Order: sequence, then structure tokens, then C-alpha cells
Amino acid sequence: MESKKSERLAQMRAVLSKDNFVSYCGMELVDFHEGYAKITMNIRKEHLNFFGTVHGGALFSLADTALGAAANAYGTLSVAIACNIQFMKAGTAGCLTAIAEETSINHSLATYLVHIYDDDEDEIATFQGMVYRKKQPLV
Amino acid sequence: MESKKSERLAQMRAVLSKDNFVSYCGMELVDFHEGYAKITMNIRKEHLNFFGTVHGGALFSLADTALGAAANAYGTLSVAIACNIQFMKAGTAGCLTAIAEETSINHSLATYLVHIYDDDEDEIATFQGMVYRKKQPLV
Amino acid sequence: MESKKSERLAQMRAVLSKDNFVSYCGMELVDFHEGYAKITMNIRKEHLNFFGTVHGGALFSLADTALGAAANAYGTLSVAIACNIQFMKAGTAGCLTAIAEETSINHSLATYLVHIYDDDEDEIATFQGMVYRKKQPLV
Amino acid sequence: MESKKSERLAQMRAVLSKDNFVSYCGMELVDFHEGYAKITMNIRKEHLNFFGTVHGGALFSLADTALGAAANAYGTLSVAIACNIQFMKAGTAGCLTAIAEETSINHSLATYLVHIYDDDEDEIATFQGMVYRKKQPLV
Repeated sequence: MESKKSERLAQMRAVLSKDNFVSYCGMELVDFHEGYAKITMNIRKEHLNFFGTVHGGALFSLADTALGAAANAYGTLSVAIACNIQFMKAGTAGCLTAIAEETSINHSLATYLVHIYDDDEDEIATFQGMVYRKKQPLV
Repeated sequence: MESKKSERLAQMRAVLSKDNFVSYCGMELVDFHEGYAKITMNIRKEHLNFFGTVHGGALFSLADTALGAAANAYGTLSVAIACNIQFMKAGTAGCLTAIAEETSINHSLATYLVHIYDDDEDEIATFQGMVYRKKQPLV
Repeated sequence: MESKKSERLAQMRAVLSKDNFVSYCGMELVDFHEGYAKITMNIRKEHLNFFGTVHGGALFSLADTALGAAANAYGTLSVAIACNIQFMKAGTAGCLTAIAEETSINHSLATYLVHIYDDDEDEIATFQGMVYRKKQPLV
Repeated sequence: MESKKSERLAQMRAVLSKDNFVSYCGMELVDFHEGYAKITMNIRKEHLNFFGTVHGGALFSLADTALGAAANAYGTLSVAIACNIQFMKAGTAGCLTAIAEETSINHSLATYLVHIYDDDEDEIATFQGMVYRKKQPLV
């Protein structure tokens, strides 16, 4: 059981390791299964905007990556088509964690809620995303 | 007139040059005035996701930066609070251009539509964003 | 040409006249063609919320109906899957007009921007919607 | 304690009873407290669109009313500024229930997630909303 989980995690890590933007932004896959993913990103100076907080684009990228891992965990390619993010608190330092959970899935579409937390477990942003589920296998 | 425009552009470029994430992603301010901005980003391999198209987070970052330049052009700090993006076409190569235009503004809030185009002038993504207008000066 | 347009308008009016909620809210189809629609709604006391302005739900309904008319003008059923609305100005009296324009369309999905204006031609709300295009004919 | 809760519920019901659109659509406040609200709506033929399912505008209206009750429970006026809804399943018959929960609140802004369920406890739609918190008392 545990070894199967490790294997799956290794496979998805291999997929994400080929995702240049995910690597470039320093995101890491902590856990995932079908319809669920947890991704972390240590805040680095490259993530900051001109007033010294994490750029909204970096926050969106983190949430979008969690959405992608949760949706692609089924083994077929899903692509984000419509996403919404609301920003609640500025991120400044430490590690950010995004948790994606599926709210619905059918043949062609699936929806996810993603919450981003900082080290104080305060919610930084809430993200809602919809994916289109293609038939082609992920790898 | 033209020299005043050049001066303003130089000032906003100076502001954005202090935005680490904007530099890190390779975005460039082409033009802006109050309520309007045009930002470009040459697609580089760092922007790509695991299936070889520009990561949704990189597209959002480009649109969010255009929103920020248009909103901050008034000289006081505006921060994005709620943003929505719909993805229409995958970006793969060439240069992406984001154009932000203001749809409303009042004392505390302002809204913007941002369209992202590729080199074929096809729309890649449509973005709708709302900012909260703080009273503090930008610099 | 003009008679063909009248005929199409009559057909879509017949479809919308079978839409109970559209009738119940007092909306009227003014014009439409593939990817475009214009719908009006005279503000009545039934549309108002407890503080005397048009309820956000009534505004969304107007925009969503414009989206539906624009998307269904192709003659096959399209259903809204993800919509976003930003409210800019309160509606209080007179007639509201929603104009929907297509921003993208492919085999399965299409996207629309809808602007709602009041009698002063001030923008009341901006709406962004995505539809899923079913294969079944509209009637 | 219980009598205080009954009193609060009666007050908010009085506020919503002055909301014409809420009455017109047949919504009912079941429960609420600061940052939380539960609203129901029995599906009637007036809510249906031309293909016989609940109009997206009626669903949005239900969610928006739940958002309003949760946000206005503090006793000062809050108005929705940016809302997003994703539709997952068609509503056809029975009673719909919307539950709004606060995800953040500060001096000027607050955010809410609203889930709409049908009688089978299937999620019909997920709604994310942001309000601007005015200083004026609700009544």
C-alpha cells in the first residue's frame, strides 16, 4: 500500500520535474491522489513584486499547479480552462502550501477548490478552477 | 508631450524593474498611461509546462502585471483582490502581448479587462481583475 | 436579408419565450446573431434588493441570458459552465441593456464577454462566461 | 441563548422580507450567524430555463443571497463586488440549499465560499464572492 503510494508520488514528481515553470518557480509536490494535491513553495526573493510581497502571479501559479496535479492524477491529460482567485493576505516570507480538492467531475469537465496557506496557517488566497479532460494519456 | 510620455514610461519601468517576479519571468513594459498598459513576454523554455505549452501561471502573471501597471499608473498603490482568467488557446512560441484596459474606477476600487494575444494576434486568454486602491504613493 | 434577420429573431424569441425565468424577470431579446446578443430589462420593483438597488442576481441573470442567446444562436445547445461578474455601479431605475460578444469558440467550448449598461450608458457590471457546446440541436 | 438566536433570525428575516427579488424568487433564510448563512429555494416552474432546468441566474441569485446574509450578519452594509460561479449539475426539481461560509474578513473586504446542493446532497454549483464592507448600519 505504502510502496504503491510512494511509486505514484514518484511518477507524478517525474511528470512535474519535466514542467519547466514549476521547477523555475521552486514548487514541490508533497502529496497527491486522484482529485487531491498538496504543493509547497518556499518564498524566495524572485517571487516578490515591487512592494515586497509575493506577486499574485506566483500565487496563482502555485494554485494552478496544485489544480493540475489533482486533475492529472487520473492519468489522462486535463487542462485548466477557467480559473478565479481571490487574494486575502500578502505573503512575505516562509513557505506557502496549496491544497487542491475536487468539487465535481464528469466525462469532460472537473472543478477544484484550492486554498493557499502561509506558515501561520492563515489563508493567503482562495482559487477555484475548472479543467477540460482530454482523452490522451498523461505519459 | 512626447518627452513627458517618455519620462513617465521611464518611471514606471523603474518601478517594474524593482519587481523581481516581473524580471524573473522576462516581462517588458511597452506602453502605459492611467488605466491602460501593454506588457510583452517572449516565450522561453522556463515558461513551459510538462506538455510543452506556456504554463497558465505564466499567462496569469503576464495579465496581472498589465493590470498592475494600468492601475498603479495613477501614482498611488493598487493591489489586486479578485481576478478571473479564461484560457482559449495554448501559447507555444514567439512573443505574448497583454493589453489592460480600465472598465471602472471609484475611490476604493477599479476594474480592468486584460486580453493576451500571441504573434498571430489570436487571443490566448481573457482576464478580468479588480484592485483595491490604497492611499499610499507608489514611490 | 432583412426578412431573414427578422425570421431568425422571431425564432430565438420563440425559444426565449419558453424560458420561464427570462419571462419572469421581464427580459427582452433586442438583437442577436451567432456569437452576439443584446438583451434589455426594464427595472421593476421586483428586481430590487433590501437597500433599493437591483439585486446582483437579477444583473447576473440578465448577463447570463445574453450569453445564452449569443451561444445558442448557432442552433445547437450550449450551457454555461463558469461565469464571473464584477459589479461597478448600482442599478436603480430605467432600462438595463446587456451586450454579449464572443471572445473564442472551438469544438467544445466558447467564451463571451458581457457588458451591462444603464440608461446613462454607464457600465453597471462586466461579466465573463464560458459555455460547453453540446451536439444536440436547440429545437 | 436560543431566544437570542431566534431574535437575530427574526431580524434578518425582516431585512430579507424587504428584499423584493429574494421574495420574488421564493428564497427562505433557514439559519445564519456572522459569516455564515443557509438559504433554501424550492424549485418552481418560474425558475426554469427553455430546456427545463433551473436558470443559471436563479442559482446565482440563491448563492448571492446566502453571501449577502452571511456578510450582512455583522449589522453593517456589505455589497458584493466580484463573484464567480461554476455549474456542475443541472437542478430540475425539489429544494435547493445554499450554504455560505466566510473565508476571510478585514476592515474593508470579506470573502465567502457558497455551495449549492440539491435534495440528493449533490453539489449543483460552487460560488466564490467578495464584498465591500460599508460603514453604514444595516437598518
